[in-house]
Amino acid sequence: MRVVCLAGGVGGAKLADGLQQIVAPGELTVIVNTGDDLERHGLTVCPDHDTVLYTLAGMADPAQGWGIADETFEVATRLAQLGEETWFRLGDRDIATHIFRTERLRAGARPTEVALELAARLGVRTRILPMTDATVRTRVRTDAGWLDFQDYFVRLRQEPEVREVRYEGIAGATVAPEGREALRSAEAIVVAPSNPIVSIGPILAVPGLLAEIAAARGRGVPAIGVSGIVGGKALRGPADRMLAALGDEPSALGVARRYAAAGLLDVFVIDRADEALGGAIRALGLEVVVTDTIMNDAASHAALAREMVSAAAAWAARSSSGVRP
Amino acid sequence: MRVVCLAGGVGGAKLADGLQQIVAPGELTVIVNTGDDLERHGLTVCPDHDTVLYTLAGMADPAQGWGIADETFEVATRLAQLGEETWFRLGDRDIATHIFRTERLRAGARPTEVALELAARLGVRTRILPMTDATVRTRVRTDAGWLDFQDYFVRLRQEPEVREVRYEGIAGATVAPEGREALRSAEAIVVAPSNPIVSIGPILAVPGLLAEIAAARGRGVPAIGVSGIVGGKALRGPADRMLAALGDEPSALGVARRYAAAGLLDVFVIDRADEALGGAIRALGLEVVVTDTIMNDAASHAALAREMVSAAAAWAARSSSGVRP
Repeated sequence: MRVVCLAGGVGGAKLADGLQQIVAPGELTVIVNTGDDLERHGLTVCPDHDTVLYTLAGMADPAQGWGIADETFEVATRLAQLGEETWFRLGDRDIATHIFRTERLRAGARPTEVALELAARLGVRTRILPMTDATVRTRVRTDAGWLDFQDYFVRLRQEPEVREVRYEGIAGATVAPEGREALRSAEAIVVAPSNPIVSIGPILAVPGLLAEIAAARGRGVPAIGVSGIVGGKALRGPADRMLAALGDEPSALGVARRYAAAGLLDVFVIDRADEALGGAIRALGLEVVVTDTIMNDAASHAALAREMVSAAAAWAARSSSGVRP
Repeated sequence: MRVVCLAGGVGGAKLADGLQQIVAPGELTVIVNTGDDLERHGLTVCPDHDTVLYTLAGMADPAQGWGIADETFEVATRLAQLGEETWFRLGDRDIATHIFRTERLRAGARPTEVALELAARLGVRTRILPMTDATVRTRVRTDAGWLDFQDYFVRLRQEPEVREVRYEGIAGATVAPEGREALRSAEAIVVAPSNPIVSIGPILAVPGLLAEIAAARGRGVPAIGVSGIVGGKALRGPADRMLAALGDEPSALGVARRYAAAGLLDVFVIDRADEALGGAIRALGLEVVVTDTIMNDAASHAALAREMVSAAAAWAARSSSGVRP
């Protein structure tokens, strides 16, 4: 079953890992957020992409969920001695990725080409595609003014409240040919439990991408999402506070409302802890699946992935037979 | 005494270290060869500059004479796993220098500005200046055709014979203002025991540089050099074979002839092992000093530096009193 997964960082990487475990080799494409990419020390760093890449390559640090296992920090230590800012601290092995990427980009390669090359060289058969080859940068307005995303996320530890979000450069972005092709041949579209505003949001905002998803759904391809907010708390990061600060409900219902408003999904998966929200989410026109959604090891990654792919397949089967839930 | 030293890599770094030990803080300027600079993995690497920088910062690997002590190679190992060529293997701490430099150059800084910034951040008071801000690349013709210098020097381990040497880009190069100022205020000019063809050669070939030295000498500023070939063997590297292959004598005399032909020097220092060559070198119009020239520790660096500065001062004193040797 050819699956396209829309993903941000750690949560997206976990679900992508689960999907990679259960679909046939090469049948998974992950379209990753690039809005939180940044330039550090003159190198192009793609945090969400690399978290997915390292996870799918089996190289990720299991404790923190991002970065590379057994990482060292010699370059960062020396850069600090040279007076460079250190709040976004890059590991040595990670830096090799950024050096490789930056060299290729400067030589004229498209980000999608570089991503495919990196995956190939690390033996990853899943296609991990940037959401666009254009440069898009998520910026957030806080009480301290507009900030670059990583400035808010890493340097300020997500402490300021987010009043507004912009995806700079998005108007000129397009879906790359490889992403378009993946969406056109997809048999299921899976939206990871990533932050709906700053991880999935930028992906959906790429001009043409939602239209590709709508076209797929028009062909009967199911689109299924899962809430990254459980019991009113984000599993990771500031999604709950962001939703609240932007006037949405900080819950699985708030996430479902955003996706329903975008016309993105057929099915939405919520945790057993949120079963009481099922009725309100169904009222948005979404089918609801209630299950265990917390992913904390490889088996739980695969379990949620299997549940989602099964639910998507079941929805598609019912849909094509004319039986709507 | 304000000293300007022309230097290549390891031999130049040793003499520069000696000079830094014996002159007042801030009175030494080292003008380094940039002809063997290269781009690796998209980073600008300046081997001669960095050997001098690390040596003068007290960070150099004492065993090999270049690179940084206690270096690690995590980035290089990972770049190899990504399929990058590995024949020019960069250490992690060294890479921090190249990342810093490349970022600054891309932001529009001149190489001289970046060099001064690096030295300042590492606490080095000696001014280490690239011979020019222009891009010059030494290339060598061998029986296998024209090669980039590091391709010949590192990848092919200097095995092919060098038939011809070119400094690409030299015609458009100029001495940077900082280098010009150093030469105009110098009280002695010291030429390190570096390779006369591919280390000192590119420096002398920068348009305007020899004229600045000639003008200094015209003001009575002494210029003193030392042979990096002792007993017919290069202390390090392929200078002896290069001289022979290019039709010169592979000896201190061959080096002296090159410098005499360029009108570079007043005084030439040779090792006691080469005392027999003194007459032939004097016949070139150079004063000859015979001493121990092998530098293998900090004390011997300082001893040779002291000998050269004293000889230069003595020459200048005699010259100004009208007594020519």
